[in-house]
Amino acid sequence: MKEISLLDTTLRDGEQAPGNAMNPEQKLQIAQRLMEVGVDHIETGFPASSNFDFEATRLIASKLRGVGIATFSRTLISDVKLALEAGGREKTHTIQMVATGSDLHLKHKRNISREQAIEEVVKTVEFAKQASDCRIAVGIEDASRGDFDYMGEMTQAAVAAGAHQIILADTTGYATPSEFKKLISFIKYKAGKGISISTHCHNDLGLAVANTLAGIEGGADEVQVTLGGIGERAGNASLELIASSLHFKPEIYNAKTNIRLEGLYQTYQELCSTIRLSSTRNQPIFGDYAFGTAAGIHQQGILANPDTYEFVKPDVFGRHRELFVSRHSGKSIIKYILEKNNLLPCADFVELLYEECINSRVENSCLSMQQLESEVKSLFIYLDKTA
Amino acid sequence: MKEISLLDTTLRDGEQAPGNAMNPEQKLQIAQRLMEVGVDHIETGFPASSNFDFEATRLIASKLRGVGIATFSRTLISDVKLALEAGGREKTHTIQMVATGSDLHLKHKRNISREQAIEEVVKTVEFAKQASDCRIAVGIEDASRGDFDYMGEMTQAAVAAGAHQIILADTTGYATPSEFKKLISFIKYKAGKGISISTHCHNDLGLAVANTLAGIEGGADEVQVTLGGIGERAGNASLELIASSLHFKPEIYNAKTNIRLEGLYQTYQELCSTIRLSSTRNQPIFGDYAFGTAAGIHQQGILANPDTYEFVKPDVFGRHRELFVSRHSGKSIIKYILEKNNLLPCADFVELLYEECINSRVENSCLSMQQLESEVKSLFIYLDKTA
Repeated sequence: MKEISLLDTTLRDGEQAPGNAMNPEQKLQIAQRLMEVGVDHIETGFPASSNFDFEATRLIASKLRGVGIATFSRTLISDVKLALEAGGREKTHTIQMVATGSDLHLKHKRNISREQAIEEVVKTVEFAKQASDCRIAVGIEDASRGDFDYMGEMTQAAVAAGAHQIILADTTGYATPSEFKKLISFIKYKAGKGISISTHCHNDLGLAVANTLAGIEGGADEVQVTLGGIGERAGNASLELIASSLHFKPEIYNAKTNIRLEGLYQTYQELCSTIRLSSTRNQPIFGDYAFGTAAGIHQQGILANPDTYEFVKPDVFGRHRELFVSRHSGKSIIKYILEKNNLLPCADFVELLYEECINSRVENSCLSMQQLESEVKSLFIYLDKTA
Repeated sequence: MKEISLLDTTLRDGEQAPGNAMNPEQKLQIAQRLMEVGVDHIETGFPASSNFDFEATRLIASKLRGVGIATFSRTLISDVKLALEAGGREKTHTIQMVATGSDLHLKHKRNISREQAIEEVVKTVEFAKQASDCRIAVGIEDASRGDFDYMGEMTQAAVAAGAHQIILADTTGYATPSEFKKLISFIKYKAGKGISISTHCHNDLGLAVANTLAGIEGGADEVQVTLGGIGERAGNASLELIASSLHFKPEIYNAKTNIRLEGLYQTYQELCSTIRLSSTRNQPIFGDYAFGTAAGIHQQGILANPDTYEFVKPDVFGRHRELFVSRHSGKSIIKYILEKNNLLPCADFVELLYEECINSRVENSCLSMQQLESEVKSLFIYLDKTA
């Protein structure tokens, strides 16, 4: 089974999005947690962009042992110099530099030719190579809208200059899974043996996770992810969903990660409290109700056998299955509570309790099992006495 | 180009999830909006489950013209009777009945044999057929974990009894796109010509949208979706993302919907206010920052040509591109504002303004363009005077 490396960019692509900025101490704390859950590389920031990013990188690189760090640079020797100064010259530091992938970016963002773009990559890779023992990664920006032959050429030039990894970025969330898989396979073939291929996907059409998984099917060795999928615009591929898909569907992907799933939810909660991000109802894995249901048909199934309505298991993440009571609940939950408390579930009582506790419940009011249990017990005693 | 029908289940699968319950009047209002944005069928509820659902169905069926409605039933004649009473006997009403798909559900939820499951479907379809002119849909629950041959048999029996549609449900969010596509193609083949095939996908591993799109690639004629992806646990496939993928990537799917994308955001906001759902930062299309960026590299590109960092266009949804200012912003936004206001962008001023307005900004503080613009203008006047 192939081991997929995870490069977490919560502290770079996640942190640069509006509302998510963190100071160096906060970044260090989150980095510590990410290391503990088993991330392989932690991207710490873009040292040339600000003193904060420089300082955060320096702090994390100096304090954390046992995890790779990564930094972001443009294809500028001056950017790489600052990245090396902040992140160190060891091979545990990945120098990522952004190469220009699409003709649209070449023309409208950079105003350079394909040849110039390849030349700047070669020069910057060569500089990083002679100046350090770092892992050198060339990230092809807007690759999903780029020309395959041109990107093949760039890949081979970068590898010849000493790059260890090529990252394919779906910068605008343009790709579909089949398109992205094809791109990854093509560049993997062009890069040749021993070169790592990585993915960087955005979620503008809700496909960041599916595209990343398609990248793994296409041969990707590493994937870039963020916790909870935070990041530019609609965000990035979610760490927890990639790790979970490989965990729950090994027969499909034949791949695994080093992630300790049981630590993810707590780490995410720490991130949320740091950047003041509220919890949501339905987010996969992390949502308030991701493992809860109020519907009668589902509760009947769950009470008989949780597998009926649960494939992704809450305990894997240190979370709990929850049955809520709303007016969508049915009689099975009343019977369950009566039996559990050794109260004889006579049909009349079940009807009465159902009317009292469920059917007459107003919209949007939702009880926990414990609350219902105490309501049912006190009503049962009352009904039993008056019957 | 194939036209994909959209059945919206915001008011059934969405509404039954914890926290989302609505009263009949609220459901009618949302149904009205869904009709206006071009949904083909609106699932109104599960009439046999409660008076609220019965009443909501009756209300919507009696008030709305020009849109199909759909109701949810178990494979019970008594459920279908109530559904017909509430939703009417015309062909604009889709009677959906839940059939049992997986052996796990047959054994642990229902405790019936495959033969019994097929028999109850046939009986209930036959009843609906003789009692009404409704469109009859058989929804195979937990189909993604079911046996293909058995589901093929059930499909053919349902069609022979008079069903017009087969719905394949990935009830627990188990499927991957390739698995789901295979299932849809297989059942489409078994159902034969003229029978509609529909999808119902859950998001437990973040793949509801990708699986639904794979279903369309596999031949699905209709898809079940909810606004914002609300629904059981991690929710359902999002209406806005399916409609957007088909809109922005016609060359991939060769399919389209009737959705008026420009009305979706406002409709979602109305839903959020009805069920007290907060907005989120990064949700695709609907997130607060789905079309905003604070990062210098992105802003430089966007100011030159928005296409560089924007494939999904905000104006299509009646939203706006937003440039925010945080310490991740760069000098290009300062230059842009100076030029826009006919203030000569001298390099020294740009440096000073950058230091003052961007580099010294504390974490998590994020300004709008308008706020920055007035800061820059007043500082420029001050600096110009003191220079």
